[in-house]
Amino acid sequence: MDESYGPLGILGGGQLGRMLCLAAHRLGIKTVIVDPGGIESPAGQVTRAAVHGSFKDPEALEQLAARCKVVTYEIEHINVDALDKIAKSNPALRIEPPPSTLRIIQDKYAQKVHLTSVGGVPIGDFRPVEDEEGVLRCGADWGFPLMLKAKRNAYDGRGNAVVKDRASVREALESLGAGRPGGAEVYAERWVPFERELAVVVARSSDGGLAAYPVVHTVQKLSMCHTTVTPANSALPAGVNWAAVEAEASRVAQAVVAALPGCGVFGVELFMTAAGQVLFNEVAPRVHNSGHYTQDACACDQFENHVRAVLGMPLGSTELVVGASAMLNLVGGPVDAPGGSMAHCSRPMERALTLPRASIHWYGKAEAKPQRKMGHINVTGDSVADVLRAVRVLDGDELSDALPSPVVGVIMGSDSDLPCMKEAAKILKHFAVPFEVTIVSAHRTPDRLVTYAKEALGRGLKVIIAGAGGAAHLPGMVAAMTPLPVVGVPVKTSTLSGNDSLLSIVQMPKGVPVATVAIGNAANAGLLAVRMLGLGRPALLDAMSKYMREQEEEVLSKAAKLEAQGWDVYEYVAPH
Amino acid sequence: MDESYGPLGILGGGQLGRMLCLAAHRLGIKTVIVDPGGIESPAGQVTRAAVHGSFKDPEALEQLAARCKVVTYEIEHINVDALDKIAKSNPALRIEPPPSTLRIIQDKYAQKVHLTSVGGVPIGDFRPVEDEEGVLRCGADWGFPLMLKAKRNAYDGRGNAVVKDRASVREALESLGAGRPGGAEVYAERWVPFERELAVVVARSSDGGLAAYPVVHTVQKLSMCHTTVTPANSALPAGVNWAAVEAEASRVAQAVVAALPGCGVFGVELFMTAAGQVLFNEVAPRVHNSGHYTQDACACDQFENHVRAVLGMPLGSTELVVGASAMLNLVGGPVDAPGGSMAHCSRPMERALTLPRASIHWYGKAEAKPQRKMGHINVTGDSVADVLRAVRVLDGDELSDALPSPVVGVIMGSDSDLPCMKEAAKILKHFAVPFEVTIVSAHRTPDRLVTYAKEALGRGLKVIIAGAGGAAHLPGMVAAMTPLPVVGVPVKTSTLSGNDSLLSIVQMPKGVPVATVAIGNAANAGLLAVRMLGLGRPALLDAMSKYMREQEEEVLSKAAKLEAQGWDVYEYVAPH
Repeated sequence: MDESYGPLGILGGGQLGRMLCLAAHRLGIKTVIVDPGGIESPAGQVTRAAVHGSFKDPEALEQLAARCKVVTYEIEHINVDALDKIAKSNPALRIEPPPSTLRIIQDKYAQKVHLTSVGGVPIGDFRPVEDEEGVLRCGADWGFPLMLKAKRNAYDGRGNAVVKDRASVREALESLGAGRPGGAEVYAERWVPFERELAVVVARSSDGGLAAYPVVHTVQKLSMCHTTVTPANSALPAGVNWAAVEAEASRVAQAVVAALPGCGVFGVELFMTAAGQVLFNEVAPRVHNSGHYTQDACACDQFENHVRAVLGMPLGSTELVVGASAMLNLVGGPVDAPGGSMAHCSRPMERALTLPRASIHWYGKAEAKPQRKMGHINVTGDSVADVLRAVRVLDGDELSDALPSPVVGVIMGSDSDLPCMKEAAKILKHFAVPFEVTIVSAHRTPDRLVTYAKEALGRGLKVIIAGAGGAAHLPGMVAAMTPLPVVGVPVKTSTLSGNDSLLSIVQMPKGVPVATVAIGNAANAGLLAVRMLGLGRPALLDAMSKYMREQEEEVLSKAAKLEAQGWDVYEYVAPH
Repeated sequence: MDESYGPLGILGGGQLGRMLCLAAHRLGIKTVIVDPGGIESPAGQVTRAAVHGSFKDPEALEQLAARCKVVTYEIEHINVDALDKIAKSNPALRIEPPPSTLRIIQDKYAQKVHLTSVGGVPIGDFRPVEDEEGVLRCGADWGFPLMLKAKRNAYDGRGNAVVKDRASVREALESLGAGRPGGAEVYAERWVPFERELAVVVARSSDGGLAAYPVVHTVQKLSMCHTTVTPANSALPAGVNWAAVEAEASRVAQAVVAALPGCGVFGVELFMTAAGQVLFNEVAPRVHNSGHYTQDACACDQFENHVRAVLGMPLGSTELVVGASAMLNLVGGPVDAPGGSMAHCSRPMERALTLPRASIHWYGKAEAKPQRKMGHINVTGDSVADVLRAVRVLDGDELSDALPSPVVGVIMGSDSDLPCMKEAAKILKHFAVPFEVTIVSAHRTPDRLVTYAKEALGRGLKVIIAGAGGAAHLPGMVAAMTPLPVVGVPVKTSTLSGNDSLLSIVQMPKGVPVATVAIGNAANAGLLAVRMLGLGRPALLDAMSKYMREQEEEVLSKAAKLEAQGWDVYEYVAPH
């Protein structure tokens, strides 16, 4: 690939640069990084070519420009004037995204003004302020609390201050070094009562095509990203239409990126309110912490797509190829903690080595410091419940429930159905599929029915087996309130031999299906669940083939026995 | 991780060394490689520390030993005497797998003798031969053709010769430089009439624990691995019990590795006969071309597991986390081809850039040569059919059937069922699920029924929707011959209004489930298939939630209309 595409210059040799280099290596693209740490920097350790020097330093930039056709960056706090100069003196050099985009984004206030002007990007109220009086006016208009933010050089919570009330205005201004002549420039933002923070990484190719990654839920700790979770819809507030939120988040993120010149990957941070409203927060013109999960969860990760985009290759697919994904940042702990600052990272990492679906990404930094990002762990799984569970394990929770979380829920209208429904449980146990068994009565516990059905997906269930007899409404009512497949077991009744149960369960109206099995045949419901789960797990379909062959052999051996003994002697023994 | 575990020394800086380095970087492990190409070698390009020198050269080995705690290798053709010497003079240094293992493996004849002696490893007949007469004796005992193999320095078909008949013995011996005093040592192998070649990569940790990766089907071209496919069970000969073959292949591979000292990853090559017998072929004490697919298909890839194993960390999971995977080697083409030798690689690579589930792994070699391995492409997908299709695209086939391969089969007993079954197709179309529609009559085309059911899984189908009326045997008979979930649609009959169809379909015996929907309700069968497919694809479950909300809104708007117009005026309009 190298001849036509590389080498690629990268300003900054931190972890983002490192992961860009590793992605470039896969494609056979050579990289040159600039960092004060040179070959000792995280990126410098994994590439042969490193320029020792600050990426704010015109001379280092000039050295880089001499060796590359395309230059990109892993951080937006770059000397744009120097960049502009390099661009002018090296007309063949492309800088992606271009300095003009950096100029807009480096000033958070200018960023919001620009994105307001293009339209289509919902942004909360914001206003430039110069002094105490200005902030007080904002408070009078919007109420308190409100946010004060430095226009420049703010990240990971630095450069932000919450103004709780009128009395704290001065302190907040001072904490940002603002409010006096010649001090830092700041602006105010109306408080957004967000329920969660979302993020969307968007790639743009050189032909202008956009590709958005799935929406992630970012969870902050101490003003820094602690974990991300995808899909981002677990434990939503009641009434939020997630499909609409997801579509809107993706639309807004793409509108933001469309409004900025250049190609590459952009990280867009958003707020979601409890009512499901999506608001723009900020954008970074580079690979983003909220996109680290893509390394192990998406067809083509953000790092490779950034390399592809800035070099003019076609974009890779941003599709999520696992059921769910979480990312846990490993940051240095307090210096005086047992084991020092590093212990805060090394413990989760040791745990990650023993978790089947956890991948370690370590940055090779020489020393841990409090809050310094040292690495991250990506976890993948079948459901959000699975990956959140894994994150708890990484975080050191001693999980009392050491069993894997259930993927099949076996429910029945009454404990009198248990002798029948037990057979489903036995089959699931035989195939080592984690399951739960409980009673949910449509008619006697209608609230529980609603809760069970609506929470099933979020809890990580994949199939529900519901058994009921008589006017058997349980399977159909559950199917009406979950997108998961529901298997219905008509329990045999004394009055109508289960004909009532069968017709109640199978004759569902168009739009809401229940997979119905024979009267009293819960074993088949279990087998059906296993076949469904086998769609994504070849090993389970293999096990099903084996089970079917064993059945075949059993009948063949009976045939042989019958033939050998003779039909008049052979005695049928009923199974118990 | 570095302090306690690294740095790791690697003998050989080719592509395997390169990918070991990249895996080590993820874990934060530093690497030092030895290669005549030094920093220009494939591995040298991606790591900071490279010793320029032959890995057969004692001095280079000594330099490496001085910098590392553990040394491993990417190739088995190493000077073992030199290694032994280094080990003796550096008692703190660990070499993994140890020289004793290399000594056994470097001599293919000794390898087979050793593995025969430990028991439990099925090996075809083999015998040392010294001259023409010896080979002729083998031919007399075993028949022709037979294989002649050099005991040492054989790989990728080099060092092997097929002896077709008595007349070709001399030529075969000469082609291997054998048969005269002082010539190469060779041995003969009885011809194994294999149906396919299989391979299993096995990792062993420092505590002796074994973890086997899934079995792959390796397809050779010009005596070199061209593609690998996992699962390895597509288009099996009739009567082969795949679950048994798979278990046996994994058992044999693990028995082989258990018989060799040391830890790390081993590649075990096997034969499978048309009757499903598994025979050992050969083993390599290193990461293996047949394990490249693990980079994109397994929880933890072979390179990371090798690094973990030799450094004494716990092994990562070898689980397949996708439905299917294929790997295509990119080798240089003929020098006189248009575009030169490189064109043979660059074309598939360009195609890979536009395929959603293809990942490029390029080795950074300066120049392409005929048959030189330049890189590989991993493809993942839901089914073997999907990934084989992608390989055909990479290979340059202009696929006339540009549609994605169907994942749902909609079948019916008669064309008279089409008006009913059409509704299932409409739902699948609405959800953009690829499907096929055809007629399979249980009673009038019983052979077609058997073929359809048995081939469904291998063709990449994931769900079968079968509709039939009257004595409706189609769904149940299909379910009896596939491990896939089968949805049954009882088609309404004029005689018994579909009661006959319903009971024929739903009342299946224990062991073979059919997911039955309401009489004539094929739409629900389509919806059920979508819910099932949604288990591994969150986007599909989101779409199902959206569909359910739209249904809800439709009914709510009708309620509003009825309330507004009044019950006495409102007119019900039947859907068409």
